[in-house]
Formats: sequence, C-alpha cells, structure tokens
Amino acid sequence: MRETDGPEPVRASLADGREILFFALPGHQPDPRPDIRPLPDRAQLASEVRFDRATGDWVAVAALRQDRTYKPPADQCPLCPSATGAVSEVPAADYDVVVFENRFPSLSGARPDSDFVLPQPLDGQPVAADGYGRCEVISFSSDHDASFASLNHAHARLVVDAWRHRTRSLLALPEVAQVFCFENRGEDIGVTLTHPHGQIYAYPYLTPRTRSMLDRADAHRRDHDTNLFADILASERSQISRIVTGDELTTAFVPFAARWPVEVHIYPNRQVNNLTDLDDDELDSLTAVYLDVLTRFDSLYPTQLPYISALHQYSSDPAQQEGFFHIELMSVRRSATKLKFLAGSESAMDAFITDVTPESIAARLRDVDPASRR
Amino acid sequence: MRETDGPEPVRASLADGREILFFALPGHQPDPRPDIRPLPDRAQLASEVRFDRATGDWVAVAALRQDRTYKPPADQCPLCPSATGAVSEVPAADYDVVVFENRFPSLSGARPDSDFVLPQPLDGQPVAADGYGRCEVISFSSDHDASFASLNHAHARLVVDAWRHRTRSLLALPEVAQVFCFENRGEDIGVTLTHPHGQIYAYPYLTPRTRSMLDRADAHRRDHDTNLFADILASERSQISRIVTGDELTTAFVPFAARWPVEVHIYPNRQVNNLTDLDDDELDSLTAVYLDVLTRFDSLYPTQLPYISALHQYSSDPAQQEGFFHIELMSVRRSATKLKFLAGSESAMDAFITDVTPESIAARLRDVDPASRR
Repeated sequence: MRETDGPEPVRASLADGREILFFALPGHQPDPRPDIRPLPDRAQLASEVRFDRATGDWVAVAALRQDRTYKPPADQCPLCPSATGAVSEVPAADYDVVVFENRFPSLSGARPDSDFVLPQPLDGQPVAADGYGRCEVISFSSDHDASFASLNHAHARLVVDAWRHRTRSLLALPEVAQVFCFENRGEDIGVTLTHPHGQIYAYPYLTPRTRSMLDRADAHRRDHDTNLFADILASERSQISRIVTGDELTTAFVPFAARWPVEVHIYPNRQVNNLTDLDDDELDSLTAVYLDVLTRFDSLYPTQLPYISALHQYSSDPAQQEGFFHIELMSVRRSATKLKFLAGSESAMDAFITDVTPESIAARLRDVDPASRR
Repeated sequence: MRETDGPEPVRASLADGREILFFALPGHQPDPRPDIRPLPDRAQLASEVRFDRATGDWVAVAALRQDRTYKPPADQCPLCPSATGAVSEVPAADYDVVVFENRFPSLSGARPDSDFVLPQPLDGQPVAADGYGRCEVISFSSDHDASFASLNHAHARLVVDAWRHRTRSLLALPEVAQVFCFENRGEDIGVTLTHPHGQIYAYPYLTPRTRSMLDRADAHRRDHDTNLFADILASERSQISRIVTGDELTTAFVPFAARWPVEVHIYPNRQVNNLTDLDDDELDSLTAVYLDVLTRFDSLYPTQLPYISALHQYSSDPAQQEGFFHIELMSVRRSATKLKFLAGSESAMDAFITDVTPESIAARLRDVDPASRR
C-alpha cells in the first residue's frame, strides 16, 4: 500500500475574496490572472440551519440563493476560463481542474468563533443556528462540452485527487462534520450550468441519510461484530446477479434494494472512511471503475443519462468509524422517454417504489457492448 | 363531540375483478353500469418488497408499472365517467366521488394467507417478501377540469369521508401497517392524468418518514412525558409568524424547519391517530381549512401551484400511539418560473436546502387577498 498526498494546488483569490484552487496535470503550470470583475461584497452568514424536531433532521435556509445563476448562455459560462479575468469565475487562460467557493452558497463560507458548537436540540424548543460550513464548485475540465465520462484516466484521477485535497482540508475545520462531494448531471435533474462540474458541501451536521446509515452500522456492529457495509459488499461479490463491473480493488453493483430506476454503488474492496485513506493503486482502480460505470450509463439510451453521483464519506471521528467510503450513483431516467418523479410516496414518506428490478438493470449495464460506448 | 361513520359507498366490480366504490352526496344515487372492456387478467403478486440493510427502509419493486397509462388524450381519460361502460375506469353516467383499485399497483391487491408476517431482517442477509398491500385511485369529481380547490365544502367533505372509509377498511386488513392518502397535483411533479384525483396506498410496512417521526415522538415522550406533535402545534399556535390560517378546531402553519419552497402543515387542534377519530365538527373544520389553504396556494403565482398533499395517519396500534394525524402539503415551485429540483444534497443525502424562509412564505400565504382568489 503506497501513501499518497496528491498534488498541491495553486491558490488565488477572486474579486470578492473567495478562494480558488488550481489543480494541474503533470507538466502543466497554473497561471491565474487577476479577477477584475466588479463583484458585490459577499453576504456574510446569510445562511441559517434549523432543527426539525419532528424528524431529527437539520435543514439549511439560504435565502440569497434565489438569485443564483440560471442557465446562462454558453458565451457567459462562469466555468469557462477567462484569460482577461473579466468574464467568468476562473481568471486564467486555461486550466485542468479548478475548485472555488460558491458565489451563492447554501452554507456560509464564514468561519465561526473557535468555540462554536452546533446547539443540541434537547429542550423541546425550536433550535436554529448560523449556517456555518462551506460550499465549493469543482470544474472537471476547461472544455465546456466535456463530461466526466469523456475525461481520460489521468484527468479523472486529478479530479479524484482534488476531491481528496478538499476532503482533507475541509474535515480539518472544527465546524465541519461531513464533506460531501457530488455531481448533478443533466437538465432533467435541474442542472443550470452545462459545463462539466460538481459541488462539494462541507456540512456542520451529519446529513440525515448518513446518520441513518451510521445508526444501522452501529447496530449491526453490536449484533454481529462485523461492519455492515463490508458484509453487504461481500454478499454482492459472492454472486453475479447485481454486479456491474469491477476489478480486484473496486466493485460496482446495483444494490439489492435499489430506490432508483438506475442505481449503482461503487465500493473499494477495503474499508476506509473516506478518499484520503485510499492508496495510489486503489485510487487508480476507483477512477477506472468510475469511468467505466459512467460510460456504461451513457450507452443505455440514445441521449446522455442524467445522474446524481454522491460520495459517501466519513471522518475519522470514532462516532463515524463504521462508515465505509463508497460512491452512490442514481438516475431518474426510467426509459428512453420517461423520467421517474419523486411524488407522494417518495417525497412525502421516503417510501420508494421502483419500476425496474435491480437484477435487470445490472444485467443491462453489465452487458453493454464496449464497442457501442461513446 | 359527535361520532360519525360517514356514508356507505355503493360497490361494484370492474371487468378484471377490481373493486370500485361510489360515494354519493345526499340525494344522489350511484348507478354503476357493467364494465364491458376486454381487460387482461390482473397480474397476481407482481410486486415485491425488499429491505435495505444500509438504511433500514423497505423499497417496493413493481416492474409491471412501466406500462402504466401515461398522459392520455382528454377523450380517453380513464377517470371520466363512461355511461357505456366501454371507455374508462368508471362505468357510470356520472358520479360524485369514486374509489377503485389501481390497475397498475405498486403493491399487489392480492390477499396473503392469514398467517403472513413481514419477515424480520435480523439475520444480516438480504430480505425480500411478496408485496402485499393495496393501491387505490380516488377521483375527486366527475368534472375533468375541476381541482380539489374548486370543490364546494359538501363535495370536499365527501372526499374526506371517502378517505375515512378507506382508512378504516384498509387498516382492518392484517397485512396493512399504514394507510397513506395523498394527492399529486401538476405536471411539474410528474402527474400523468390531469383529471382531479388522488391515491391511497396501504403499505405492509411503516414508511421511512413515519418510522422516523414515531421514533422521535417516542423519545420525546420518554424525555418530556408529552406528545411531540402536540408540543410543536402549541408552539406554533403561541405566535403568528408561521401561521397561515385556521379556526378553533384546526391550524395551518408553515413548519419551523420547512424543507420545501412552499410547505404547509394542517393539524386538528386535538390529537387523534387518523381521520376516523375526528368528530363531525372537526371534519367540517378540517375540510374548510384545507380548501382555504389550497385556494391560497393557487393565488401565489399566475399558474396553479403544483403540490403534493400527504395525509400522515397512524393506526391504533400501541406502537403508533404517539402519532398525531395531520396533512403535509409541499410544492416544488420556488418562483413563478422556477422549480426546486431534488438534486445531490436532497436526493442522495436527504439534506434539504431551502431558498425561502418559512416566515416569508407564511406571510405571503397569510396575506392573500380573498378577493384575488380564484
């Protein structure tokens, strides 16, 4: 197992003080220019988090986001490089991968006093707090028309290394409980910028789904003295029916109780809490399997598959030690012409009904002819 | 407090054996005709439920639903009355409110052996079971162009009485754990039939959200010896900031930690487990407040508001005694031209970010000019 820290980015500042980080492929040297746009001051602490006593979940209230950028014309894309520093969010003639603080964040980029602790909602009263945390945008490529699936292995691995860098840095902030890297791809799920990019949310709380999964894993440890997710992975690897692809270090499968018409989970074969714990070979394998799955996705239908890609990461906090890093990919497309909508059963009651058996979608993804892939 | 059993429906059968129930306003007499359509046999037990070990949630797999009716032309509406019995799902010249078993159910309409028990997922292995339960369609009116908000009070109360009838009947089935009445309204949330209608799902398990809320309420009872939802209701009623409307028996408010751009909860002021426990005055009040809220919804924007209406009901089982019947209404519309999409944070992590403060949307709904209402 080789340790790897990944490349160090070149840092610069945008006109309103937000941080921007340039990650470069070997042999490339980032060359940030001054950002000369007349940006308004950043709203400080315009975000609030509220505790829902009925469910035990935190909800973020970020009113300023109503004015965020919405489907700009291609020549005003905020993620394309801007050599003049006058047009986009990336003041540079070119770049490989770039990360910057979101101009319209769901969670404030402000830093709390060092003694900030999220209030404990124990007294039965409504509880709110300032919305500390951080929201970053990660642009996967300077090519406006690329997609993650179209990146070559080295470039995709650079994205993975950028995710690792941000995970390590953001988990080190005392107010951050969880670092969530994700990609929303496709207008069908509400994406307003077509330039290939993802987002990174550093939440001051555990997200509800993570909390549920950790609760289940803790109970499983008490009952069986094994890791829940390792047991699930071993069970899937013991037979073929829901396997999509993989190698000796990484496995991609459709989960037994998939909630979405297309859903694939990618696990490293060794339990780690997050991306920073993987060694170089495991990172290369994860990158290859991830690209393989995304390529299979785009072979399912005549058009590119809309998807959400969600990196489930955990900190090294003892309360999160049962967490098993993995990627969950899901799509709302249920046929070439139809989407799944999250209506009453799913949206109101979290009770998912799926129209597709997990085994049938696994077989379709497994049997994609490599020659047919775009 | 007056007891009320509500009207008894007239029962008939559709061509493939599904049950249909006609609920009539005073003075009206349902007159079902023979359903002469050549319908194929119903698929028996084509539904399966699977337990997700990672989250503790059940997921229903109903593959036959891929072929369900999708945006039919208005002259082929399956919910309009069909005097000839040859065209639609409702073989009658007219009707007030009708309920029938869904032709494309998410949960099988079959009845299990009397000793059926949902398997306990305790042994760490994947657990699946036949998808017992029942899915019904409720048409609110024979008028294709009506909406729930356009019904007069007596007609809306008839819908409420039909909900009560179905709740009582379905909760009496031993395989049913929860009866969920809901309405999806609007193409923006994927509604494929524009005729005003709702659905009723009788699940063999508690839905994940209900389970979470009961867990919270049980913990609150242990800590405070009071009912969690009664405390939340009292807290909201003690000040105006999130109140929308109400009367001495019913309260409508935007919850403190609302997850949706428009979200309203309607509670009876007295704790009951489900609709069948309300008395006649409470039912009239609930009906009036519900109509009032829906009318306010349609006054927010130039077009009708898409919404999901979800009736949170509990059985009289001791494990559900902390449940407090209420209605949760939510909309994805965040401005006149924009929708909220459930993307990475919400869909993958259940972590909601809202763009609208609960107090501001409550004020907008509270201040709707009655004269401006459609």
